[in-house]
Amino acid sequence: MSGTPDSKDARGVTRALAEFVVASRFDDIGAAVRHEAERSLVNWMGCALGGAHHATLDAALAALLPFAGPPQAGIIGRRERLDAPTAALLNGMSAHVLDFDDTHLRTLLHPSVPVASSLLALAEYRAAHRPLSGAEFLHAFIVGVDVECRIANAIYPTHIEQWYITGTAGVFGAAAAVGQVLGLDAVGMVSAFGIAGTQAAGLREMAGTMCKSFVHGRAAQNGMLSAIMAQSGFTSSARVIEAPRGFARVLVGDCDLGVILEGLGERWEISLNTYKPHACGVVCHPVIDGCLTVRNGHGVTPAQIAAVALRVHPLALKLTGIRAPRGGLEGKWSLYHSAAVAFCDGAAGEEQYTDARVCDPQVTAVRERVTAEADAGLREDEARIVVTLTDGRRIDVHIEHALGSVDNPMSDHDLERKFIGLAADTLPTGRAEQLIEQCWQIGALTDAAQLARLAVP
Amino acid sequence: MSGTPDSKDARGVTRALAEFVVASRFDDIGAAVRHEAERSLVNWMGCALGGAHHATLDAALAALLPFAGPPQAGIIGRRERLDAPTAALLNGMSAHVLDFDDTHLRTLLHPSVPVASSLLALAEYRAAHRPLSGAEFLHAFIVGVDVECRIANAIYPTHIEQWYITGTAGVFGAAAAVGQVLGLDAVGMVSAFGIAGTQAAGLREMAGTMCKSFVHGRAAQNGMLSAIMAQSGFTSSARVIEAPRGFARVLVGDCDLGVILEGLGERWEISLNTYKPHACGVVCHPVIDGCLTVRNGHGVTPAQIAAVALRVHPLALKLTGIRAPRGGLEGKWSLYHSAAVAFCDGAAGEEQYTDARVCDPQVTAVRERVTAEADAGLREDEARIVVTLTDGRRIDVHIEHALGSVDNPMSDHDLERKFIGLAADTLPTGRAEQLIEQCWQIGALTDAAQLARLAVP
Repeated sequence: MSGTPDSKDARGVTRALAEFVVASRFDDIGAAVRHEAERSLVNWMGCALGGAHHATLDAALAALLPFAGPPQAGIIGRRERLDAPTAALLNGMSAHVLDFDDTHLRTLLHPSVPVASSLLALAEYRAAHRPLSGAEFLHAFIVGVDVECRIANAIYPTHIEQWYITGTAGVFGAAAAVGQVLGLDAVGMVSAFGIAGTQAAGLREMAGTMCKSFVHGRAAQNGMLSAIMAQSGFTSSARVIEAPRGFARVLVGDCDLGVILEGLGERWEISLNTYKPHACGVVCHPVIDGCLTVRNGHGVTPAQIAAVALRVHPLALKLTGIRAPRGGLEGKWSLYHSAAVAFCDGAAGEEQYTDARVCDPQVTAVRERVTAEADAGLREDEARIVVTLTDGRRIDVHIEHALGSVDNPMSDHDLERKFIGLAADTLPTGRAEQLIEQCWQIGALTDAAQLARLAVP
Repeated sequence: MSGTPDSKDARGVTRALAEFVVASRFDDIGAAVRHEAERSLVNWMGCALGGAHHATLDAALAALLPFAGPPQAGIIGRRERLDAPTAALLNGMSAHVLDFDDTHLRTLLHPSVPVASSLLALAEYRAAHRPLSGAEFLHAFIVGVDVECRIANAIYPTHIEQWYITGTAGVFGAAAAVGQVLGLDAVGMVSAFGIAGTQAAGLREMAGTMCKSFVHGRAAQNGMLSAIMAQSGFTSSARVIEAPRGFARVLVGDCDLGVILEGLGERWEISLNTYKPHACGVVCHPVIDGCLTVRNGHGVTPAQIAAVALRVHPLALKLTGIRAPRGGLEGKWSLYHSAAVAFCDGAAGEEQYTDARVCDPQVTAVRERVTAEADAGLREDEARIVVTLTDGRRIDVHIEHALGSVDNPMSDHDLERKFIGLAADTLPTGRAEQLIEQCWQIGALTDAAQLARLAVP
């Protein structure tokens, strides 16, 4: 891999990443990595279809449409067309708004939102004059995800105490992917990273509000524009990541930037991507699996439950510890609500995280019987659940690896079923299957924008 | 002032600021405050005219025009028209790109860029259906500046070690001003602040690159959009400033948020605004004044100079300590270059901060004879200069208050002259005088967008 310096040397990390992106060849990426990228696209597209008519999207569109540019790109699952960067923003928002999108478990970054959303908008923009092939799309997607996850590896976990890591590291992923497709040279790519990095933003304080998905979509839009601006000769710092006043020091503090370049081009971060079977914070998932096991395996009904004691990784309590959520978006960040709907509904899909479900008396009655404790001896995808029934019986369940984790992944078929469920209210009959097929076949498409065309209702 | 809580209580500071903005009445603002706002507008408009054709603007426009929306607003000093938020971005960039715009000396924030740039774009957007009166514009401008500077008061000086405070605090000012004009209620204004605050960004690492003015312009654009999104019901945190994961804790650390509300509605931060006679970092200014005094008062020529010893406030060395600038934008952040051009050219205007002037052999020869030392006993607007001549003579100068500081302000006439110089290459004869007159008379305009119309070449 030409241009990849000693991985111990963090001084030139921005430049090294830029050179890596520019020099990368699709042929060097193996079939398993490509297939994981296709799985990511299936999952991302399904989530965007599911989120397309969320109130968050309606509110954003009402505000932004009067200022939008030419009809260059569409919004997945909707009929409106607008300028490509705004389309990237909105597709990023819809793909994330259900908290159902993919997760790089090592960092809790959601890889596809910034990268796929910006690439699809660019593909649509370019379709008329120079179509972006499916192979180019897939290549740039893999590389963009690699860049954002590698940066995330260096700043996790300190960074996520305060920031949405997809909002901050994700903007580099979008810049890398779009910059590669635009054919930026290394100097241009370095500038693109600089323009992207100085816009890195997104406070965790936004949890439970429409701003959470907004921050994620902004990473797609701002990263995309960074690459486009760099192409026009817009200048920036040559070392935005590692400089004393650069991204890492300012938004994280001390961290080991050397990890960013470890194994660059040899292993791909997208191989570690995971997909959620449940529509909520990923650290809730082992608990949901456990509660479903108790409900389905032991035929337990909500009325029989006297107490539910959860033991989870400390991060699960930190991130999803909302005791009494006030609405659907907060429900996604509540272990207690997630356990309750698993018992009441036997599911934790989008329908379990509506405002109505969060306030439902039967659900809240179960929720109030749930307690949770952090256990540093557990992994993030692991949980222990003890359910005490009203007749005094006690049921113990241990979930070693939640469904959807690296060690217990969703199958391709699981992903297809999830997609079809999410698309049900949005696409005409048969279209979901067609779109899934095109995602699996993306490498053969002469125009990646074809995906966007099929996603219009 | 209804809704203003105990100033010691930082818990409700976001809500208190929002209530203040919503309840504010123009009649409660005195004539001196209004006149300072007019002075700020004259200075801001002049800077935007001077920066309108900077390479930074050309590069940004080349990148952004293909995606721009309907021709709702213009770019000061140019003919292009585009959607209002992008116009706000570009006018913010042009007004800042020469480093010649106003400074709130207590925090080094540049007040007008976020607030005036967003308001003028909104005035143009609204002109067709409901014109924004000059009085409404002036009122919102004063209030927006107050909000951003008050937030800046709380986070200075720690924050500016790493961040551009205009990029971060400025976004709240734009949101406040635009939100007031849109008629948001307190709940809406709180949301606008939340949406704005989660986009606060701008790394000091961008110094000397096109990204510096970009970050400043983004504050105008993002703040404006935050208010517009809040109007559409977009939700956000109710306490973005003071929350444990909110703006202040995350982007600053510990700071005294109580100062934000001190004397709210009684004193106005715009009264402390200052304007630069020289086109460079404001902390360079006392040095330039001193060197001009030596040159003009003692008839010293560059060839006679053996050594120049500067004593300055520590911050001057920190912010403008670039020893050997590599181009015009870096030259603006070099005490050494600024002293050299003062001796060589008798001026420190935009022409002294070109790439050519920074590399000029005569200028660099003088620059290399300049040394600088920090002296914590000096104020930021103060400097001591000792010039040793080749014949052994020694000239001492003490600048107590640089021209343009609060204690030695530029007169209205000085501001007009500065404006006319900046507009010379951009506007037809007589138009600059007309535009200045409209700024002084803004309170009487029935449509504030009139300013934008006159600013088209």
